[in-house]
Formats: sequence, structure tokens, C-alpha cells
Amino acid sequence: MNELIQAEIKKIFNGRFSTSESTRANYARGEDTYDPVLSQGVVFPETNEEVSKILKLCNENKIPVVPFGTGTSLEGNVVGNEKGITICLEKMNKILSVNIEDFDCRVQACVTREQLNDYLREDGVFFPIDPGANAALGGMAATSASGTMAVKYGTMKTVISGLTVVLPNGDIINTGSRTKKTSAGYNLTNLFIGSEGTLGIITEVQLRLSPVPESIMAAVCHFPSLENAVQTAQQVIQYGVPMARIEMLNKEQMGISINYSKLKDVEEVPTLFFEFHGSELSNNENIKIVEEISNSNHGSSFKWAKDLEERNKLWRARWDVYYSVKALINNGRVYSTDICVPISNITECVNFAEEQAKKFGLRAPMVGHLGDGNFHVILPYDPEKKEMYKKIREFNDLLIKKGLELNGTITGEHGVGLHKKEYLLEEHADSIPLMKLIKRSIDQNNIMNPGKIFDLN
Amino acid sequence: MNELIQAEIKKIFNGRFSTSESTRANYARGEDTYDPVLSQGVVFPETNEEVSKILKLCNENKIPVVPFGTGTSLEGNVVGNEKGITICLEKMNKILSVNIEDFDCRVQACVTREQLNDYLREDGVFFPIDPGANAALGGMAATSASGTMAVKYGTMKTVISGLTVVLPNGDIINTGSRTKKTSAGYNLTNLFIGSEGTLGIITEVQLRLSPVPESIMAAVCHFPSLENAVQTAQQVIQYGVPMARIEMLNKEQMGISINYSKLKDVEEVPTLFFEFHGSELSNNENIKIVEEISNSNHGSSFKWAKDLEERNKLWRARWDVYYSVKALINNGRVYSTDICVPISNITECVNFAEEQAKKFGLRAPMVGHLGDGNFHVILPYDPEKKEMYKKIREFNDLLIKKGLELNGTITGEHGVGLHKKEYLLEEHADSIPLMKLIKRSIDQNNIMNPGKIFDLN
Repeated sequence: MNELIQAEIKKIFNGRFSTSESTRANYARGEDTYDPVLSQGVVFPETNEEVSKILKLCNENKIPVVPFGTGTSLEGNVVGNEKGITICLEKMNKILSVNIEDFDCRVQACVTREQLNDYLREDGVFFPIDPGANAALGGMAATSASGTMAVKYGTMKTVISGLTVVLPNGDIINTGSRTKKTSAGYNLTNLFIGSEGTLGIITEVQLRLSPVPESIMAAVCHFPSLENAVQTAQQVIQYGVPMARIEMLNKEQMGISINYSKLKDVEEVPTLFFEFHGSELSNNENIKIVEEISNSNHGSSFKWAKDLEERNKLWRARWDVYYSVKALINNGRVYSTDICVPISNITECVNFAEEQAKKFGLRAPMVGHLGDGNFHVILPYDPEKKEMYKKIREFNDLLIKKGLELNGTITGEHGVGLHKKEYLLEEHADSIPLMKLIKRSIDQNNIMNPGKIFDLN
Repeated sequence: MNELIQAEIKKIFNGRFSTSESTRANYARGEDTYDPVLSQGVVFPETNEEVSKILKLCNENKIPVVPFGTGTSLEGNVVGNEKGITICLEKMNKILSVNIEDFDCRVQACVTREQLNDYLREDGVFFPIDPGANAALGGMAATSASGTMAVKYGTMKTVISGLTVVLPNGDIINTGSRTKKTSAGYNLTNLFIGSEGTLGIITEVQLRLSPVPESIMAAVCHFPSLENAVQTAQQVIQYGVPMARIEMLNKEQMGISINYSKLKDVEEVPTLFFEFHGSELSNNENIKIVEEISNSNHGSSFKWAKDLEERNKLWRARWDVYYSVKALINNGRVYSTDICVPISNITECVNFAEEQAKKFGLRAPMVGHLGDGNFHVILPYDPEKKEMYKKIREFNDLLIKKGLELNGTITGEHGVGLHKKEYLLEEHADSIPLMKLIKRSIDQNNIMNPGKIFDLN
């Protein structure tokens, strides 16, 4: 990036363009296992028009750009580009409109999910997608995120009704509709969801909200073996119980969480966290079914969160799983697997992961959004110890191969980023040429987050 | 299409390629208001490979193709092409696999929704998307259809987890995953859903099924005015009641349906059809809320369908609305509007439609999927009377403009086809260039259903 271009960027952004090493280092990676890569500068736009100007300029000069939100991604999706600039949207954090009557709202890309839910607290509605991290909603869109409540409320794919996207040529487009459904032309909204910043920059998100349920009830249930826990989850889903959440923590992770989150009255054994959303009547009805299924799999009696505070503590522990594992090692990093399989194969897949972790001698805390067939083995390591990381990747390699054998997908919710490009070739060999064709036609100069999802050559 | 090419097609398809006038006429249009256009021939492939061969041949020779399913589309989506051939998928009607444990199945494109549900009858699961017509599932995918149960079960966009698509160059690709969620690369599945045959031919559909609810209860409620009925629906949705269906028929349509479907014990006044899916307990709970809301809007007491037979009769009448209106005129046709607005604007939009129909002196039966903010004015006319048709289009023109003013979409579920191209320009002016760019890059010779959705020039 020559000085002329730097001067032009400065002219547009004044103090909101930084080339200092500390700023560049702050935006050089997400929460993944990659080493940071410093872009040549970081720019902080405040409006769609500013995003348009910077993209146009970069496109004309073939300068790569990396869109950046809260940096909570896990697959190298926001790792910097040494020849390019990082466009951080953190100043685009306004809630633009909320329409309670229609259960929808429109936000700028860097509104986080907690920020939105705090804002909605008095309104009887909430935003239900909960990936754990307090991620930016634009980033969650770009990653096609989901999390603990997808089993009832869907994923970003199903709750986003429209987007504002800035294309690499600077065009600002609005996709979708505020209506509950539309058949008006190509579904561009869903083309950008999950595109990980490789096709354009999502600057606004139109979201569907959900009514706060009359009754929320959360319980913990312990199991003698992980297989018992997983089978319970599988059977609950197959029975058709409308669960809000059904989360698994294995023995290892329970031990870590009890310690890190100071959890009381729970045991260091394989465990399911349940949450029921509905009327009191329907919750009680569903709880009865789930208790019966749990009992038949040797589950303990349910331990109920007595109130909001206790419930929040429980879920805070679940959200902090990533950090609890990271804290195990000084300056450690964490690699999280993200396999997802059809529910009928989840027991086999989790069993395989346990066995392999043992074989590899890996400490392998596990959590799972079992209702969706999605689980994560969360592997801590010291980045100085290359051998350890190699072992982890070998383990993940086997797990992904097994997942694909079981009709699974290589990533349930974290995206492809830099980590999973070779696996994407295995899952979607026949349709990658079409993905590349679309990429090339929209981003002719390959400036948008190049090298992520797939390589063009 | 010269004789050499015809000979080549015959070589591939033998008796399954017809150039007879009667066959060409049979596949010259859907159930829309367009005059039939006869393609030069109709071909009936049986496998993905045959679809691939014919597309490759047509692409190399720049012969336009029109994909055809059951011909139940309403917007000219399958009107023939006088320089091209129609590819009718009716022989691709096999149910390929059903996996009850995972609530999913895979079907060839021309399996119809009734065929699938008949097949599933004993299995405790069903396919919930119900557009009324017994449409092909591939066609429903291509149109992004929905219908009466979208309020609870979503649309084709949300129940399709993967597709097999044959691209214009003959490539056969498999999109999506059998898993409940995936973030693996671009969401090609949703690019083809709603693309109306302009990007490729959908030959297989992977579908999510739903468990048959423990209890299904259907009721009819009469209202003194249409506004009362519409407000009831609006308030039920805003209250967050998880309705399975909430369908409106206006006075005019009730009269026509009573006559056509021999309905008894119902009155010729504005009416809502309700259906509740759930446990008996939760249904009773929800019914109580809906009854209270109806009462407060001067609704009659609920008339319950006593058993499956009575319920089927009720919904059969709802499904037959289109045909009941068509039967009003000898050799008549029907134009159906398809506006969809946010729920908070549905009362204003329906009121506007009623007023305008009166002003235009149009007989205007109406039905609505009010839970989604989507309703249809179903306008019968004699195709010989051009003035009448002109009036209908003028009425529709005003209604669409009003819908867009109210943050609506020009089409909730019928697609764009030939009828709504100019309106698509109004709704999505800023993103149509991107739609065209995608079309041009995937279908370089513009052979796929050319002239539908938008014109390329």
C-alpha cells in the first residue's frame, strides 16, 4: 500500500485510520489458533457510505481487505492480511429500529447480541441466537453462527430477514424484506450469510425477535457415562420434545467448569443442561417426558435452577467453557472442533471422539449442542509446543473424516476460515467450482478476505 | 432447433421426447393468466444424468429450456419458450430415502407433497409445507413456496436442507447437508430456492419433516366485518400464540366456497379458519387465548371440526378456493395477487384491497395466510374480455404499490415469473444488478428459463 493511497484513506477517515503497530496487532486475529498477521492498517468506518468509499478505493487499487467485528471467530476468519487493510466495524454499533409488533429489529453490524438483548429487556421480546461469545451480529451473520438455542429458535440463516451489504465495487445493496416471507428474486440474504467476508461487507442486519416465553425452566442432569447422556439427548429430540436448549458437558469439562465458574451442587460426571421455554403448563408437560427419558438412561434426578440468578450462573458457566479451558495453560490457546452430524449418528460420533482422544492421550473437554447434532472438543495447548498442536490437528482430522462418513458437515457453526479449507474440498468437492465462480464474479479482484474459505488458484 | 439437434435429443430420450402439438400444448403454461406458449418439444428425463445431458446439449447449442413440474405455478414461471424445449420432470417422482429418526427425507423433484405425505402416513411424521395445490416439491423449491402452515413450520427456505441441481453446463452438484445446520461454504441451497429455474434444474430435494402433533384441532370463527377478522389474526400473532394455521376468507369467498365445496354449518361472512398443533394440554391453553382475542373482536363462538373427516373437508374447501373461483366463469382464468406485509400493517393493507376492489367494481374473493401477513385477492375473468383483465392488473398495480409503501414484498410465495418483473425492479432496484451478475456467471448463454424473474438486457 503506497503512501498516496494511505493519504487518501486518511483523507476519508482522519483519526479513524491507524497504522500503529499496537492497533494493527489488536486486530490481527480472532480467538483462534493462528498466529496473528498484521494488516498494513486498520480503518474504523461509521457509515455505509464510508465502507463503500474504502472498498471502492481498495478495489481500484487491488488492496485486500479483512472485515473485522468483535474478533470472536474461531477459524482464522479474521486473521489480518499483510498486504491489505483490516476494516473494523466496531463504531457501527447502533440499534437502528425495533418493531415490537412485528418482532423484528434492524441493527448495525457491530451491535453485539448482549447489547441488543439488554436494549430489549423491557419489551417482552429477545434475540434468541446465542453462540456463547458476545459476538457482533454482523459477524454472526457472516459466519452463519448459531449456538445453544438453535434447536428451538434456528440459526442466523433463519432469523435474518434482510441485510445491507457493501460490495467490493462500493455498491450498497439492501437484501430481503421485513416480511415473514418473500419470493421476490434471488435469495441474496442467504448468499452473504456464511460468506465470511469474502463477497462483501455486511453493515446492517434485519433480525427476527422472539417473544420472551411465559416460563423458562433450567435443570441439570448427571449421567454415569457420556453415552447415556448423549443417548438421552438423541431420544429427546427424536421424541419431538420442543427443547429450548439441550447442552452436554463431558466429565473433563464439568471438572474444569466447576473449578473455573465456581459451580456448586453439581458433580464432575457427564452432564446435560436442559432449558424449557413455553407456558408453565407446556413446560411441565415436556419436563415430565424428558425426565422419563433421562431416567431410562440412568440419569440423576433433575437439579433445578431456582431463579433467574441461578439460571444465569449455570449458563454463564456454559458460555465460559472456552475461557475455562484456555485458562488451563499459561498463554495457552484453544482449538475447538465443530463437527455436526444427523441426530441418529450423534452417539456414534461422540463415542468416536472420546476413544480417539484417549488414544492420542489428549485432554479433551467436550461440550455439545446435542439437539442439533453439533459438538465441540475443546483442546487446550501451549503454542510453543508444536508437537502438541500437530497431534490436535491429527485428532481433528480423524474426527472430521468420521463426521463426513456419518453424513455430517465439517462445521456446524464456526465456518471454514483458514482452518478447514482442505476439508471443505472433501465435503463439497462438486459444488466448490460454483462457489468459486460466484466469488470471482462478485469480487473480480479478489480483495475480499482473500484466502479464507477456499483458495482461488 | 434444427433437425440434427432433434435427432440427438431423440437418441438420448427415445420415446421420451415429443414434438407433437398436443404434448407441447399440455406443457405450455401453468395455472396462470398467460396465454400458452408452445416450446418446440418436451423432453421427459428420468435421471440426473439425463438432465445433465440435455442441458449440456442445449447449452452448447444455445437452446433455451423451461423446467416444468406439475404446472401449478401462478406467475407464468413455466410458460413455454417458442425457440426452446420444455424439460418436464414428471418421471422423476421417486421418494429416494426417508429417515424417521432424523426427521428427514430425500425425494426426486416431481414427488408431490400429497404423494410424500401419503407415503409417510404410518410413520408419525409429515411434510408440513402446504401451498394448497398438490405441487411438485422441486417446483415448490424453485418458487420458494409456502402456504397455510408457514406460520408454524416455515417455508421451503427453512425446510430444505440440501438439493441436487444440474447446472446449465451439465454439472451435477449436491448442495447443503443432512445435518440440522452447517456453515460449510456458501449457502448454494438457498441460492437455487426461489430461482425459478433460471440458474439450474433442481432434480432432488432433501427435506426436513415434522412429527405429527399429538393433537390437531381446527375451528371456524365468523366475524361481522373483515377488519375484525384481520385484527384478530394480527393480535393472535402479536400475542405470540404458536398457531399452525390462521386463514382468512372474506365474505365473497365464503359464499363461493359454501357453494362449490358444499360446506355446511358455516355462514357467508368474513371468517377465520384456525388450526392448532400440539399436545392436547397446550392446544387447549392456546385455544383459550385465541377465543378471548376473537371475542374481543366480535367473533362468533368457535365451530369445531369434530373429526379428521370434518377437518379434511374444511381444509379441502380452503385448498379448492382457486378452483372454486375459476369455476365461476366458463373457460375462465384467475389472477391471484400475492402481496405480503409485516403483520402490523396487515389490517391497513387488507382494508385498502377491499376499498380498491369496490372502486374498480371487481368481484374480489380473498383468502389470506394472515399469520404471515400474506393474502391473495383471487380475481376471476373471461380471457376474451381484455378490458376486464386490464382492470385487474390496474388493481394489482395499486395493491403492490401500497404493499411496498407498507414495507411489504411484491410476492410472498408465488414468485416473480413473467408477471412481476417490473415490480421486482421497484422492490429490489439496488440489488438486481447483483442478481443479474450471478445469473450471467452461472448461465452464460442465458438458456435457463430466459425472460423469467428479470430481463437481462
